[in-house]
Amino acid sequence: MRKPFILVCNDDGVTAPGINALIESIQDLGRLMVVAPDKPQSGTGHGITVNSTLRLNKIREEKELVVYSCSGTPVDCIKLAMHKLGTERPDIIVSGINHGSNASINVIYSGTMSAAVEGSLERVPSVGFSLLDHGIDADFSASRKIARTITQKVLSEGLPQGVCLNVNIPKLHESEIMGIRICRQADGNWEEEFETRLDPTGHEYYWLTGKFKNHDKGDDTDIWALENNYVSVVPVQYDLTSHPTLSTLKSWKL
Amino acid sequence: MRKPFILVCNDDGVTAPGINALIESIQDLGRLMVVAPDKPQSGTGHGITVNSTLRLNKIREEKELVVYSCSGTPVDCIKLAMHKLGTERPDIIVSGINHGSNASINVIYSGTMSAAVEGSLERVPSVGFSLLDHGIDADFSASRKIARTITQKVLSEGLPQGVCLNVNIPKLHESEIMGIRICRQADGNWEEEFETRLDPTGHEYYWLTGKFKNHDKGDDTDIWALENNYVSVVPVQYDLTSHPTLSTLKSWKL
Repeated sequence: MRKPFILVCNDDGVTAPGINALIESIQDLGRLMVVAPDKPQSGTGHGITVNSTLRLNKIREEKELVVYSCSGTPVDCIKLAMHKLGTERPDIIVSGINHGSNASINVIYSGTMSAAVEGSLERVPSVGFSLLDHGIDADFSASRKIARTITQKVLSEGLPQGVCLNVNIPKLHESEIMGIRICRQADGNWEEEFETRLDPTGHEYYWLTGKFKNHDKGDDTDIWALENNYVSVVPVQYDLTSHPTLSTLKSWKL
Repeated sequence: MRKPFILVCNDDGVTAPGINALIESIQDLGRLMVVAPDKPQSGTGHGITVNSTLRLNKIREEKELVVYSCSGTPVDCIKLAMHKLGTERPDIIVSGINHGSNASINVIYSGTMSAAVEGSLERVPSVGFSLLDHGIDADFSASRKIARTITQKVLSEGLPQGVCLNVNIPKLHESEIMGIRICRQADGNWEEEFETRLDPTGHEYYWLTGKFKNHDKGDDTDIWALENNYVSVVPVQYDLTSHPTLSTLKSWKL
């Protein structure tokens, strides 16, 4: 039987512990092609490289595993993997394991999740995984098992067209995790503060800092699940139309 | 009566003809603060600057108009305008006028539209405007009137929380435009091709090129409207949850 062809990406870069944990956890499930950024690309959202050029570099090749680093964004990686390198359509695209949460509105800023969204635009079932731990020494052991379980499930069940999955995993030991919950995206945002500094010539520059604020009291959200020790799974779509607003706008008689 | 406070952004950069057409078209409607990228930032999506620093530079100040250039992305511009410069919450955020279409799935790649989405995350009524003409000498005369009409309407009516507007304008003379249609986002994607070149040392590099493909036959989409000489207005939300998929996933018993 033909083994599944699996495309792997992330936004923390090809050397990040998270992507290597993901590769290890699913390596026996199929033939893997990894195309990931050659440097950290956190917060690049659905950015693509239109005003400059792109590079690919094959950095590892062994039985059923080939790894490329790419000079571009996570979305560039998916496009290059599918349309430059790809002679075969992936059966699944997995992205991550991200260092840090992509729950709630973070899905929009996340390069890791944008790679999965791009996968769904390519009509390939796609999943992004994130662990709620930014540390370089984060413990991916529970995340590994969850990533493997969900990858197997999506390989067997597929996903509806136009939908990918946003999986977030709490920073807990496997034995402390209460289970996996299917959720909607919590309504939150970032309360930003800019730290102002002076450069050596006395001119101001700024660092973006901020605090995530959840405005959503529902117990069916990803934030609720994670705060209650569950893994959250949100089905994510790229149709951004606010369908309930269509009739309001039509009454405007523009 | 207090004049509205209007925040203006784009992704083509602060010197682009499109943003200057937008400023001119609405300047008498309120007090304007413009914070826009200091260089082209097309295709940066919802990217933010997390691994490096940001700069602001005041480049113009006159009665009821102040203009800043910003070293970051369009979303950085909104965050800096609101949380670094802002002593007053905007009554509306307008972004554009973009040089080129942001209809259908282009909304996801667009820095111009991401600025509007970020505005809606900040709970400010926000609108992105795009003209289907990439040319530096594009004729913005019809776009100017449409941008002004819709800005006035949103100032008077507001928008539902969590929703911004994606307005696309066909490349036509004002007299040829059939009207304004409220639409859903067409389901399309980009069929990418990478142009491969060799650098002077003989190594490959790539340019992203591609062709937009509409897969959606509906006559209620933005692509249909534009192809039939209408202005398209799509209400855009940042809740990416695919609500119809929730029950499917719950049946998986993960």
